[in-house]
Amino acid sequence: MEMEGYYGKKSKWPKPMFWGLTAFLAAVGIGLGVIIGHFTAPKGPECAVPTPDSNVGSTPMPGVNVIDPINAANIEENLRYFTKVPHIAGSPAERSNAEYIRDKWIEQGLDSAKLVPYDVLLSYPNDTIRNKVSILEDGNEIFHSRLEEAVLRPGDDHPDVVPPFNAYSYQGEPEGDLVYANYARVEDFEYLEKTHSDIKLNGTIIIARYGKIFRGNKALNAQAAGAKGLILYSDPADYAIDDGDIKVYPDGWWLPETGAQRGNTFVSDAKGDPVTPGYPAKPFAFRIDDYDTALPKIPVHPIGYGDAQLLLGNMTGEEVIDEWKGHLPVTYRLGPGFNDSSRNVKMTIHTTRETRTTYDVIGFIRGEIEPDRYVVIGNHRDAWVYGAVDPSSGTAAFMEVSRVFGELRKSGWKPRRSIVFGSWGAEEYGLLGSTEFVEEFQRVLAARAVAYINVDSAVTGNYSLSVKSTPLLYQAIYAASKKVPDPEDLSTSLYDTWRDRLPADANDPNTLPRVSNLGAGSDFAPFMYRIGVSAVDLRYRYDPSLGISSYPVYHSVYETFYYMKTFLDYDFLRHQAVARLWAEVARDLAESVILPFDCTDYVTKITGSMDTVRTAYEAQMAAQGITFDYIYSALANFSAAATEFEKVISQTDMKDLMALRRVNDQLMQLERAFIDPLGLPDRKFLRHIVFAPSSKNYYAADAFPGIVDAMYRIDEALDQDARWDIVKQQMAVTTHAIQSAVSTLQDVLAFDG
Amino acid sequence: MEMEGYYGKKSKWPKPMFWGLTAFLAAVGIGLGVIIGHFTAPKGPECAVPTPDSNVGSTPMPGVNVIDPINAANIEENLRYFTKVPHIAGSPAERSNAEYIRDKWIEQGLDSAKLVPYDVLLSYPNDTIRNKVSILEDGNEIFHSRLEEAVLRPGDDHPDVVPPFNAYSYQGEPEGDLVYANYARVEDFEYLEKTHSDIKLNGTIIIARYGKIFRGNKALNAQAAGAKGLILYSDPADYAIDDGDIKVYPDGWWLPETGAQRGNTFVSDAKGDPVTPGYPAKPFAFRIDDYDTALPKIPVHPIGYGDAQLLLGNMTGEEVIDEWKGHLPVTYRLGPGFNDSSRNVKMTIHTTRETRTTYDVIGFIRGEIEPDRYVVIGNHRDAWVYGAVDPSSGTAAFMEVSRVFGELRKSGWKPRRSIVFGSWGAEEYGLLGSTEFVEEFQRVLAARAVAYINVDSAVTGNYSLSVKSTPLLYQAIYAASKKVPDPEDLSTSLYDTWRDRLPADANDPNTLPRVSNLGAGSDFAPFMYRIGVSAVDLRYRYDPSLGISSYPVYHSVYETFYYMKTFLDYDFLRHQAVARLWAEVARDLAESVILPFDCTDYVTKITGSMDTVRTAYEAQMAAQGITFDYIYSALANFSAAATEFEKVISQTDMKDLMALRRVNDQLMQLERAFIDPLGLPDRKFLRHIVFAPSSKNYYAADAFPGIVDAMYRIDEALDQDARWDIVKQQMAVTTHAIQSAVSTLQDVLAFDG
Repeated sequence: MEMEGYYGKKSKWPKPMFWGLTAFLAAVGIGLGVIIGHFTAPKGPECAVPTPDSNVGSTPMPGVNVIDPINAANIEENLRYFTKVPHIAGSPAERSNAEYIRDKWIEQGLDSAKLVPYDVLLSYPNDTIRNKVSILEDGNEIFHSRLEEAVLRPGDDHPDVVPPFNAYSYQGEPEGDLVYANYARVEDFEYLEKTHSDIKLNGTIIIARYGKIFRGNKALNAQAAGAKGLILYSDPADYAIDDGDIKVYPDGWWLPETGAQRGNTFVSDAKGDPVTPGYPAKPFAFRIDDYDTALPKIPVHPIGYGDAQLLLGNMTGEEVIDEWKGHLPVTYRLGPGFNDSSRNVKMTIHTTRETRTTYDVIGFIRGEIEPDRYVVIGNHRDAWVYGAVDPSSGTAAFMEVSRVFGELRKSGWKPRRSIVFGSWGAEEYGLLGSTEFVEEFQRVLAARAVAYINVDSAVTGNYSLSVKSTPLLYQAIYAASKKVPDPEDLSTSLYDTWRDRLPADANDPNTLPRVSNLGAGSDFAPFMYRIGVSAVDLRYRYDPSLGISSYPVYHSVYETFYYMKTFLDYDFLRHQAVARLWAEVARDLAESVILPFDCTDYVTKITGSMDTVRTAYEAQMAAQGITFDYIYSALANFSAAATEFEKVISQTDMKDLMALRRVNDQLMQLERAFIDPLGLPDRKFLRHIVFAPSSKNYYAADAFPGIVDAMYRIDEALDQDARWDIVKQQMAVTTHAIQSAVSTLQDVLAFDG
Repeated sequence: MEMEGYYGKKSKWPKPMFWGLTAFLAAVGIGLGVIIGHFTAPKGPECAVPTPDSNVGSTPMPGVNVIDPINAANIEENLRYFTKVPHIAGSPAERSNAEYIRDKWIEQGLDSAKLVPYDVLLSYPNDTIRNKVSILEDGNEIFHSRLEEAVLRPGDDHPDVVPPFNAYSYQGEPEGDLVYANYARVEDFEYLEKTHSDIKLNGTIIIARYGKIFRGNKALNAQAAGAKGLILYSDPADYAIDDGDIKVYPDGWWLPETGAQRGNTFVSDAKGDPVTPGYPAKPFAFRIDDYDTALPKIPVHPIGYGDAQLLLGNMTGEEVIDEWKGHLPVTYRLGPGFNDSSRNVKMTIHTTRETRTTYDVIGFIRGEIEPDRYVVIGNHRDAWVYGAVDPSSGTAAFMEVSRVFGELRKSGWKPRRSIVFGSWGAEEYGLLGSTEFVEEFQRVLAARAVAYINVDSAVTGNYSLSVKSTPLLYQAIYAASKKVPDPEDLSTSLYDTWRDRLPADANDPNTLPRVSNLGAGSDFAPFMYRIGVSAVDLRYRYDPSLGISSYPVYHSVYETFYYMKTFLDYDFLRHQAVARLWAEVARDLAESVILPFDCTDYVTKITGSMDTVRTAYEAQMAAQGITFDYIYSALANFSAAATEFEKVISQTDMKDLMALRRVNDQLMQLERAFIDPLGLPDRKFLRHIVFAPSSKNYYAADAFPGIVDAMYRIDEALDQDARWDIVKQQMAVTTHAIQSAVSTLQDVLAFDG
């Protein structure tokens, strides 16, 4: 799953009411509920599972009720099951979980459930030569980093725990001088180059802290700078903030010094399996040589901040500026090298790249009236270790959602449209399972999939609902979240707390809740960016004003059931709320006679995004003779078409099946209108013209990425003419995409001719 | 339009019964009907327009009758109108014809008709510096080719006649030694290289005869060989065969020595406008520099065989082999150069490339039940000169088809699905009008277009119906052609004559008529190859056993109304038959409750095509470890899915609108399953995996082009490893495409897992 947080910005949100309170403990049922500083006012142990009539509001619920039957205790039980053993992609445990889910789905009442295997390129630490980072003195190792994370609680020491590593790291044993590069962002390397041109990065080993951006981008940046290797560590500034009374696992939610963040380094740009770009990794597949791909060409390795302290504390060179300083008790220096010149650093990395089978599980409830329209809901199943947050909190919720739909199905209910359940494999390696599935069924999914609703980690904190979505589904999510009771205060709704804690505009008393653009941090990416299936990502998260990029123990061995129950969701009501929202949005999409899509929100959103682009670049573009007129003319057409189309919908005879199918097809295809088969410049599998993962940070999402990327510091580009040509072309491509949305909203061919 | 004929093969068809008879004249009505040798037994002047009850067979016609009202006399009148003045693309005449058609369609009763402009790169002879080919003696011009074709009949001399030229030729005045290269095919240049390596082609000017392959491929081949220029001429062996009593225009249908074939040299690979690949040439478009494109980089110019005789008759070098000899009364020699070494050849080519506006006209009859399903019928409107054959015979038929549908519409009739009428501009420059239209509306057409039925030249001879088609529509065409009376014998059907004269298998008494694969010679190409809209091309043609590549006066000034009426279709009954078939297929597609598509024919066709590929390459591939097993497994799945789907169709409740829509969507989308967004290797806009225009001859069609092209003489390739990788990848891509067809025929997601 992806990181959260507000990369590089300090939060503008008001801190929650109870934020200033010190942590306190409360015994809750049989579990131990540790309410730490970021935990917002719990109502205490009486906040039990709501009764069936606890729904907020008095509006009668249309269709079946999928909210009330969703039960926190079941989810807790599910999570306990899924976190018993490590279940990394490609392992026997991943497969046995897949089989368990398949069997469960059949038992729960789904119409079918099957395993779908893909033979993908995965990556593991070498069995015999352990990965490590060493300090050499006159060529002799005087220190090496931990070979595995310390076991801090009984039961965390399953033999299948995979030591910390970065998947797809290049193999090698580079030695060199260490240079500190902050977060290893583009701007960090630019800063080094501009202010410290005496530090030659070529041949050095970069040490950089995790956070802010996707680690794969860090690897590419270090590689581009000429480094021989990259050491990533979790600085306490980002993973164990000392707020006066710091508590690390198992005493608190912060990362202990022995923890290290696993994670893959492949900037996949929606390719999926690195060696079968564009096509499913089936037995008939053709595999390209792996060095032809975007995989890193330098060793990359993660360490904890205990080990990092030894490396950083012995460095020489200039002291770093304040923004570059972490929270370790050392003087942060740039390097190059150690203060003892007889010493240097060596990485010993023998991480493999090997083809293994990963499994998707696909469940299906056949729609009664429109079986060939699919509402897809999904979650990945593979975890780096126990994965109590990522993704098993989502998997636990998913199995409860499927249970409720299965029960309904058993009782004779059939949705109007089909519901497809996807339990994805190998998400952690670059969304492989979901992407291969999308690749295999790209034609039928593009023709039939109504929407995709993703939950990766269901709960990463206890602050608020957090939503990423296509604008088309804002209203559906608002509506559903108003029906779901708030996990802390049953008298109010999930929506209310969400709006209060994550307002779109804190200065506006009538604000809507904030919904972010989709990045590429989870399995919604291939649906949204490859084939234009409207997508949503749901979770319950920690307070973004903490300024951290993920929950602290992210991808470490400490992501355990104990961690979840003790620090994040002691009563599983946040899980329950996310599961209820997920089920209700799916139900709405599967049952509504007219799809709950709002075209006007899309118009508003992309017009606002384009205004931002115009404000940033209009003057520069005007100097090149580039006008925004065509784009704004297309946006005006889109606005008029959306208004007109809403009128068509409102006048549609609800008994005229063909008319309903027609307007629903138009709604379904609206997102597809933004898909360009040629893709973005240099990123051909990212084909959505309006939204894409940022090329600078694969986790984040840019609006109008083709234009924004081409304009990025264009005045400093070496090949400005070529760059301006790309800008001009992307302005035209964008105009055409918006005009295609206009055509989609018209059921006959209409021309301005 | 494209060339016809059987490129490089001698026909296997039996000659028609009356082929051996000498030509005879017959006065027919007020016209002069000249029945030449290739004309088959006419029934004489009593072959009038059939009466309404003249339909063949006793099966009651479902739906409205669009066959009987189609009237030969109207078509004749239309052709007279459209051939009055030259109407080259980008000219005022092209625009005024567009406006005429738009107004006519409104008057005829269509629901709407509009002009759709595109600003595309066109090409014309320079107004002041005339194009020519000269012989220089010691640097002085002693001869130059005709600046324009001779006027051989009063009235053929309109001031707007554009002199012969090759559109998009590079400008230049190269001088050099002449080398004769037969048809300038790949194999011709290979022959030269292998058997005459002493002839260095670099810097020479190639003279080659027209025919066998698309002239754009000739230009690319000459350019690749290093030639500075290419002179194309029409040899009598291909355009004026001396069968004992040769008659050239205006006395017969053969090409006179003063005629030259205009034509474009752009191998577009479905790009459309050369400078806006992938996107519509609208005001917002971005245009690439034209030298970045596939346009030729050498001058190319067409001359008649009168002028060619002077060039060829004075050449030196070895005499050519028999297969290279044409029918001019000279000794054909390879060169290089003239027998008088003080002489050489010079080309003076100042053909422009300029952006002009071309117009599509789009007419629309809104469907009653499924307005968002489009049956598209189209014809191009632009002609090199008068275009009596190409395309105005098609345009004349088109206006009669639209008249009949308009009359029905006026009477209150509405089809189930919408009918879209497309009158395309600038087809002669590389299918520009149709391709830009497909590019502009690619999303909605891919979602909604049921089929595209093209007629370019309706009549190029009087021998038989000639059909190119996707296998999906074979049955629909057979059925419709059985309802249309034969133009020569009203007691029989168009189908019967077609089957008799162009049998698929002459040795099989139960043979079906022959249907060819689609090439890329007309406007069906962007529909079929870019977005996977099932396409058909219809015409009435001359006898293929003639072995010629086109009707003789193709693209010359002699393509006049007089030519059509005198030599090809004196009573316009062949036009009438094509128009009737066109209208009936369109009606069937627009009215049938279940689309008249046959999946089993697709299975049979592509299995047969794959058998051919396997026979040709299995041994070579096996040596590389490549198996056909996956493809044949996918084909078996396809066969089973088609059989199962036919059962589903047969069991569909004809009153269940949603079920009908569902199976119709699957039928519509079957062709789309073969579209790969990544396109063919090096030809990314050709995206159909099963069929594509041949990379060696853009007119012809290959099955499984990705595989076949990669295998082409692979043992002689310089980069064999890379070529084998492409073969392996294309085998996988093909398997995936066939599996996608399987998924398309299943309304739920089905897995082999």
